[in-house]
Amino acid sequence: MTYCLGILLRTGLILASDSRTNAGVDQIATVSKMSTFETPGERIITVLSAGNLATTQAVISQLKQSYGSGDFHRDMTQSLTLFDAARKVGDTLREVLNRDASFVKPYGDPAASFLVGGQIRGEEPRLFQVYSAGNFMEASERTPFLQIGETKYGKPILDRLLTLETDPAEAAKLALLSFDATIRSNLSVGPPIDLMVYGKDSLTAEHLHTFDEDDAYLLTLRQAYAQGLRDLVRGLPVPEV
Amino acid sequence: MTYCLGILLRTGLILASDSRTNAGVDQIATVSKMSTFETPGERIITVLSAGNLATTQAVISQLKQSYGSGDFHRDMTQSLTLFDAARKVGDTLREVLNRDASFVKPYGDPAASFLVGGQIRGEEPRLFQVYSAGNFMEASERTPFLQIGETKYGKPILDRLLTLETDPAEAAKLALLSFDATIRSNLSVGPPIDLMVYGKDSLTAEHLHTFDEDDAYLLTLRQAYAQGLRDLVRGLPVPEV
Repeated sequence: MTYCLGILLRTGLILASDSRTNAGVDQIATVSKMSTFETPGERIITVLSAGNLATTQAVISQLKQSYGSGDFHRDMTQSLTLFDAARKVGDTLREVLNRDASFVKPYGDPAASFLVGGQIRGEEPRLFQVYSAGNFMEASERTPFLQIGETKYGKPILDRLLTLETDPAEAAKLALLSFDATIRSNLSVGPPIDLMVYGKDSLTAEHLHTFDEDDAYLLTLRQAYAQGLRDLVRGLPVPEV
Repeated sequence: MTYCLGILLRTGLILASDSRTNAGVDQIATVSKMSTFETPGERIITVLSAGNLATTQAVISQLKQSYGSGDFHRDMTQSLTLFDAARKVGDTLREVLNRDASFVKPYGDPAASFLVGGQIRGEEPRLFQVYSAGNFMEASERTPFLQIGETKYGKPILDRLLTLETDPAEAAKLALLSFDATIRSNLSVGPPIDLMVYGKDSLTAEHLHTFDEDDAYLLTLRQAYAQGLRDLVRGLPVPEV
């Protein structure tokens, strides 16, 4: 499994992914699920991947190979909008599945999904979720975060506390708490966590951070949250039962 | 969907279920998913149901009709242990699916699952989860809670704070917080919440409570938790991003 999270903020975007990949419990490895396509000052497009690793790597590799090639169908430098970039991700996914799916199905599920976030000059930052079918939907004021992979454990804290107006550092903290809840409850999601804080109109991939399992901030956050939650719940009234 | 939760404690059991049932978004109704089979002083067996409503109702109706009948295969008064009672639930589920499944499949999923908790005189309180296949597993010291239905949203708080040694009123509070997280994140889980606090060796169904949406305690708990969580997270350090 995998957990990837994209957050749309008034001030930009937060994009985060875990690093665990597994094909059965005895084939566990660490990969980055975050890929960035960048022409500084012009466009930054970050793609987060979930699903079959061969499928996602094929999609990302094809998009990387085509970046700047001028190939209208695959080259994301040819996208005038992030909508067009998300379509290229979906189209490339369809190509890969068209080529591989029938061969892969006897062994497992070839499906994959993606989050595509970033900004192209002339637009606001945008965030899309590309489904396994290659179609996609966009985050908005009323749906400011999108998730793929193991989405449920980390959703309640975001539902409660995240809005479009949340400050970027606060939103990054919420994202890390969402990952913490997921990692605690699902063995197939694991560190390091890649986290990008994109500031609107910067058009560069500056604020990219990697939080290892023993990252000092992450340890402090986890412990303080665990202790604070214990104290909070202990202080709540009990029902008369 | 549905959410049912069973908790095994040193002092007894907590059993809880939501009440929403739906067959498509325009067919939503309220049903109780908790059924109790009781011979005071002798045995109490509580069954929580998830899955296809016709299937679960058929299973429960057959078990109710057979209670005290002397029919060895179906009558739970003939069970010497809760293991035997769980087997009767699984066997009855197999009978129902054997009769109905092929007719139901063109329209939807006939599957169902159950939690079976209680105590039969001479044994400790026990708790089982009956799978759709009719087989089952038991809660233990290291796995003190079992869930069926929409299990993920309400799991992190239990993973963090619940143990076999938790006091019953505290465990009931945790159960209600687990339901609150689930109800907030999944429309197909809804109040009222039925909650039974079973005290070891009482062998009666005394402490059965129903928490409606506007229950004063539940409102207080939800608000205090939401506010406390907001304050807790706001007080945690932010990452340098």
